[in-house]
Amino acid sequence: MFDSGLGGLTVARVIAERLPAEHLVYLGDTARVPYGTRSPETIVRYARSCARHLDRQGIKLLVVACNTVSAVALDMLRVELDIPVLGVIEPGARAVVAASARHRVGVLATVGTVASGAYPRAVASVDSRTEVFAVPAPMLVPLAEEGWIDGQVPELVIDRYLASIAAHDVDALVLGCTHYPLFRPLLDARAHQICGAATRVVDGAEATVAELAGLLAERDLARPTGPAGDLRLFVTDIPGRFSEVAARFLGRSLEGLVVEQVDL
Amino acid sequence: MFDSGLGGLTVARVIAERLPAEHLVYLGDTARVPYGTRSPETIVRYARSCARHLDRQGIKLLVVACNTVSAVALDMLRVELDIPVLGVIEPGARAVVAASARHRVGVLATVGTVASGAYPRAVASVDSRTEVFAVPAPMLVPLAEEGWIDGQVPELVIDRYLASIAAHDVDALVLGCTHYPLFRPLLDARAHQICGAATRVVDGAEATVAELAGLLAERDLARPTGPAGDLRLFVTDIPGRFSEVAARFLGRSLEGLVVEQVDL
Repeated sequence: MFDSGLGGLTVARVIAERLPAEHLVYLGDTARVPYGTRSPETIVRYARSCARHLDRQGIKLLVVACNTVSAVALDMLRVELDIPVLGVIEPGARAVVAASARHRVGVLATVGTVASGAYPRAVASVDSRTEVFAVPAPMLVPLAEEGWIDGQVPELVIDRYLASIAAHDVDALVLGCTHYPLFRPLLDARAHQICGAATRVVDGAEATVAELAGLLAERDLARPTGPAGDLRLFVTDIPGRFSEVAARFLGRSLEGLVVEQVDL
Repeated sequence: MFDSGLGGLTVARVIAERLPAEHLVYLGDTARVPYGTRSPETIVRYARSCARHLDRQGIKLLVVACNTVSAVALDMLRVELDIPVLGVIEPGARAVVAASARHRVGVLATVGTVASGAYPRAVASVDSRTEVFAVPAPMLVPLAEEGWIDGQVPELVIDRYLASIAAHDVDALVLGCTHYPLFRPLLDARAHQICGAATRVVDGAEATVAELAGLLAERDLARPTGPAGDLRLFVTDIPGRFSEVAARFLGRSLEGLVVEQVDL
């Protein structure tokens, strides 16, 4: 799996919980993060170099643990690679449609993901009746990376974004960026307050891992039992606070893990 | 001049005001922004490619309008280029020392600039008695780029950073990141409230342009009169909201300006 940075580790965390015997190779393109504000051409170029590096490690399946790349470069990756490729947007879209009784759903995502129109397209292919209202929530990324995940500042920021969503009277909301699950308790509480008590918040990472399990079984690729799988981390740059930020997303210390820096 | 992104346009804005006849070539490395969280090796590599591109445009002097690059790569650039190279840290350090009566100064900067220790070194070389307290203020960069420059969210964020500064009982404070001048009114008001009514806030961009004027005159490179100079913009990526964000930093619309995308 790869991500533009470390946010995708929130997906790695769910994989480790749900499919503990699988070996994971994670690549975070930390030298070129963030992708969310870059042009589609640049994102495609970066995604290709990440996918090729992982393909050379002999992986059996690729998870694109980045909404921006899933929005812009998934078709290209599926054409160019000989292994199954799973993005995070299609599973998130299916899950949010299933969670909405009134066929009105919201999306919180980066500027790049919103501009791509990927969630409305993915939702339309699942259920053409459902209306989608996507709101860019860029400030949640630096807040997550700084660890400002509770308190007054993230609450005010989240309230501002949720007010834009609430104006569209939705009853389900998908988190369209791998950083956002860090705010899950706050997002749940504020969404119930601002968008209505019945509003359901859907985490794209959970939905993706559920589909991953199905895909592995279907293609006869699963490693369902055995000792806990390895987690190998590749990054393209190691800034000073790497371990601290990575541990926050992964939900565990990096102690005992192999972290390698690569130049793509 | 170059910057990791568009923040350096706050320096271009001051140059256009103070030295209106000078021609400006600005390069914003928007495909690789931000530099502030990257390793020194990566920053040096990026800075070299930016400086070489500008040198090929036949510039007479290079302003490194980026604190992170000034902190990490200025010596390398001075060795490798045959033209004068001016960074933003040394002028900012001189100005904040001059503004402090009690020889205790604060610095607000990115994580990378603070970790480099560049401000304490630069201040020590001006006045060895002055104590320097540098605080990373990373959240101000995305707030500036999103245009959240007044209201409750930036005020709370600024108060949190200023409280760390105030603990050290300083009487002058330098803005060590080109994004921060956008918050100038709020920073002045909150610094007077939190750090004391006599606290002086110094903008590194103003100090840099004052030194630039002196350096141009001294080296007989100035174009002191004549029609208004040209401003040419190079960027390495043009995201969707480029014009809006650039105009905010430059303080004017981009209408009539030439913007070219280059691959470094």
